[in-house]
Amino acid sequence: MTNIDDLVASLPEGVVVTEPDAMEKYRFDWSRDQSAGTPLAVVRAEDAGQVQTAVRWAAEHGIGIVPRGAGSGLSGGSSAVDGCLVVSLERMRAVQIDPASQVAVAEPGAFNADVKRAAAEHDLWYPPDPSSFEICSIGGNVATNAGGLCCVKYGVTTDYVLGLDVVLADGTLVELGGKRIKDVAGLPLLKLFVGSEGTLGIVTRVILRLVPRQGARSTLVASFATVRQAADAVVAIRAVLRPSMLELMDRATVNAVEDYKPMGLDRTAGALLIAQSDAPAAARSAEMAAMESACAGQGAEVFVTDDPDEGELFVQARRSGFPALERRGSLLLEDVGAPVPLLPDLLDAIAEIAERHGVEIPVVAHAGDGNTHPNIVYDATDPDSERRARLAFDHVMSAAIALGGTITGEHGVGRAKRAALPEQLGPDVMALNRRVKDALDPQGILNPGAAL
Amino acid sequence: MTNIDDLVASLPEGVVVTEPDAMEKYRFDWSRDQSAGTPLAVVRAEDAGQVQTAVRWAAEHGIGIVPRGAGSGLSGGSSAVDGCLVVSLERMRAVQIDPASQVAVAEPGAFNADVKRAAAEHDLWYPPDPSSFEICSIGGNVATNAGGLCCVKYGVTTDYVLGLDVVLADGTLVELGGKRIKDVAGLPLLKLFVGSEGTLGIVTRVILRLVPRQGARSTLVASFATVRQAADAVVAIRAVLRPSMLELMDRATVNAVEDYKPMGLDRTAGALLIAQSDAPAAARSAEMAAMESACAGQGAEVFVTDDPDEGELFVQARRSGFPALERRGSLLLEDVGAPVPLLPDLLDAIAEIAERHGVEIPVVAHAGDGNTHPNIVYDATDPDSERRARLAFDHVMSAAIALGGTITGEHGVGRAKRAALPEQLGPDVMALNRRVKDALDPQGILNPGAAL
Repeated sequence: MTNIDDLVASLPEGVVVTEPDAMEKYRFDWSRDQSAGTPLAVVRAEDAGQVQTAVRWAAEHGIGIVPRGAGSGLSGGSSAVDGCLVVSLERMRAVQIDPASQVAVAEPGAFNADVKRAAAEHDLWYPPDPSSFEICSIGGNVATNAGGLCCVKYGVTTDYVLGLDVVLADGTLVELGGKRIKDVAGLPLLKLFVGSEGTLGIVTRVILRLVPRQGARSTLVASFATVRQAADAVVAIRAVLRPSMLELMDRATVNAVEDYKPMGLDRTAGALLIAQSDAPAAARSAEMAAMESACAGQGAEVFVTDDPDEGELFVQARRSGFPALERRGSLLLEDVGAPVPLLPDLLDAIAEIAERHGVEIPVVAHAGDGNTHPNIVYDATDPDSERRARLAFDHVMSAAIALGGTITGEHGVGRAKRAALPEQLGPDVMALNRRVKDALDPQGILNPGAAL
Repeated sequence: MTNIDDLVASLPEGVVVTEPDAMEKYRFDWSRDQSAGTPLAVVRAEDAGQVQTAVRWAAEHGIGIVPRGAGSGLSGGSSAVDGCLVVSLERMRAVQIDPASQVAVAEPGAFNADVKRAAAEHDLWYPPDPSSFEICSIGGNVATNAGGLCCVKYGVTTDYVLGLDVVLADGTLVELGGKRIKDVAGLPLLKLFVGSEGTLGIVTRVILRLVPRQGARSTLVASFATVRQAADAVVAIRAVLRPSMLELMDRATVNAVEDYKPMGLDRTAGALLIAQSDAPAAARSAEMAAMESACAGQGAEVFVTDDPDEGELFVQARRSGFPALERRGSLLLEDVGAPVPLLPDLLDAIAEIAERHGVEIPVVAHAGDGNTHPNIVYDATDPDSERRARLAFDHVMSAAIALGGTITGEHGVGRAKRAALPEQLGPDVMALNRRVKDALDPQGILNPGAAL
C-alpha cells in the first residue's frame, strides 16, 4: 500500500481526506454504482496548484485519479476506484463575469446555476441547462459536454467553451483558448477536452461564452394518446422551426411526477410534450401557433400560456422526472439518442424492449434533439428483476445504435456504458480513441476504467 | 526518386497526374506562397477508396501528402511540398440533403455555395459563409474551421459538423459522428479533426447540420471619421445585441473596392461598418435602431435599408475586399483576432505598425467577432518593401497575442504562420499539439510543414 503521508504533508491541512467515513460520499455519483471502489484518499483541492501537486504525486506512484465535481453524474464517470486518488473540485467555486467580453471565468466546482446567476446580474445568459443545473458543476458539464432542455435551440456545453485551464497527466498546467471568440491556431485541443470525461486531464478553470439574456417565453403543453403520436409531432415541429425547448414525458413519468409533486398533469395521456418559444413577440406567436397545429395534427389536446411563472411550473415538472422516478425503485439510467426523424422508431423499440423483458421503462426526452432518457426501474433486492433490467439496458443501447444513434447524448459513457462503446464506435474508432488517450496519459492514471 | 508507376497503375486512368504543366496549378493556394514546392504527383481522387489507396502508398514510401480542396486557402495550408503527393478532393463534389434530419451529406470538394444551394431547395440553410463561399470547398472549410460574415450570430464550421469520414495516416477510413444531433460517446474526435488543417487525416465526407432558412434581413451602413470610432461602435453594439452580421472596412479598403467595382461607398470615411439583423419583424426594427444609435453615438452617418437586394450590394462590396486589394500589389494576409472589447486597441496597434514600417495595411474585419484581416500590401519587385512587409506581418501577430488574441481566427496557421504559433501557444501547448499529431501520424506524412 502506498504511503499517502508525503502527499498529506505537501498540501495544507484538511485538503487530503483519508478517513473512511469522510471519504464515503466521494465514492458515488447519482448512478449509485454499487461496484464503486474505495479510494486511497480524497484531495479536496482549493486551487490549480494543489491539483497539480496531487496529479504529480499520483503520476510518480502510478496511482489512478478520479476527478470529481458535484457528484451528480449519471453514468458512473466519477465513481471511485479501489486505491485511487479522488480529486474533488468542489471547493473551487469562484465565478467572475467579464461583461465587456461577455464571458464567465469559472472554477470547475461552481454550479451551472452559479454561472447563470452571475451572468444574469449583467443581463447575460449561459444557456446550457442540464435538468440538474442547480446542483451540477461546470467542471462536470465540461467533462460530459452536458446538454439540457434549451439545447435544441442553443446548443450544448462545447458550443460555449472558449477557454480551459487543464492539468495534464504529468501535472503540467496548460491554458487553452481564451476570451477571443474565434481562434484556429493549432489543433483544436480545447474541443478535445470538452466531453473527455476526465480521461485526458483535469479542468481547473473554464472560460464560457455568454449571450444576451433570453427573451420572454411562451409555453405549450400537449397531451397525446400515444407516445408515437407525440414523437411524430416532434418530427413535424422540428421540420418547420427550432423551438427553445421541446421535451417529452411518457405516461409512466407523468404519473411518477404527479405522485412526487402533484400539479394536475394529465395522468391518462400516453405522452406529454412541453415546448417553449422564446422568439420575439409576433414571431413567438407564430411559432406557438405552428407547434399547436403540429400537435393538433396528432390529435393532441393543447394548452398554451404566455405566463412565465405558469410555464416554469411545467418545466419544473419535466425537470423533476429523475428524482420522481428515483422513488419508484432502483434505476438504470439511459441517455440514448437517434436522428430526430427516427425518434418515433426509437421510442417504439424501447417500449418493445420493456415488454419483452417485463420491466418498466419510463421515458423522458429532450425530444427536439432526438435524445431520450429511458429510465429502467428495477427491484435491487430481486436478482431476477435486476438481471432483466440489465438486459433491457443493453438492448436499448443496441436499438439506438441500430438506428444510427448513440448510447449517450449528454451523460457520458462513464463506467456504466463502457462495455457498450465498441458496439457503437467499432474497432477502428476505438483504436483511434485509445491512441489519443495513450498519447496524453501514457500511464493510464486519469479516470481509469471510465469512458473508453 | 520514388517510382510513382505502381500508384498510377493502381488507380483509374487520369486520377494520377504527373505532368509538370498539369501539376502547376496544384502547387499554390491563394496566398501565392512563392516557396511552394513541386509535387511528385497529384492524385485527383474520385472517391474515398482512391484517397485510401493514395495514402497507403504514401505511407509505405514515407512520402508527404498535401490534401487540397479548392485551393482558395489564404495561409499556405495547401501549398505543395517538394516531392510530396498532392491529394486533391476537387472531383468529389456530391451533395445530398436529408430534409427530415436537416443535414447535408457532402463530399469534401463540394463548394460551400453548393451546400447552401442544395439546402435552400428544402428551405434549409447552411450558415457558415466565408467571403470566398462561392469558390471554397467544404473540405477546406472543415480543415480550417472556417468562419465568415454571419458567424457573429450563427457560429463557425465546427458548430455545424455532425459527422466526418476521415482517411487516417495509415489509410484506415473511420466514420465519426452521424446524423444524430447530440452524441458524447467516446472522446470528441470529430471536433479534433475540424480545424486540424489536414495534419491528422483527410476528410472524405462531411455531415453538416442545417437550420431553417434565414429570415429577412435589414442592412445598416455607417460611415465613421476614424477606425477607432467604428471599433468603439462595434463594442457598443455587441454589448446589447447579437447582429447577424457586423463587418468593418477601413478607408484604404473602401477605396480599393471603389476602384475595383464602383458603387458609391464613402471614400472619405475613416471606416465603414456594414451590419445586418435577421431578427423577426418588430425585433429587427429594434435591433436596427439600437445599432443605428450605437453608431450615431460615435458620430457616424448611418444609412439603413430593408431592401434585401440593396443590402446585398453592400455585403458584396465587403466580400470583394480581398480581390480588390489583390490588384494593388502583393499581399501578406493577416487573420488576427482579439477579445471584442480590445478590437479598438488591436486596430490602433495595426495602424501604428503600418506607420512604423512604412507599409500600407488596409483592414477588413469580422468586427463583431473581434476577427480582423489586415492585408499588408507590398511590392514584390522591391526587396526592401517585402522586408518591411514581413516585419509588419510578424508584428501584427505579436500585437494580437499581446492583447490575449490569436494569430488566426479562421484562415488557419498553414505554412504562412507556422513560425509564429509557438509565440501564441507557448512550449507546453505546443508539446501537447505535437503529442496528438505524433499519435495520429507517427511518420509525419500528413501535410508536412503545415499548421504545427
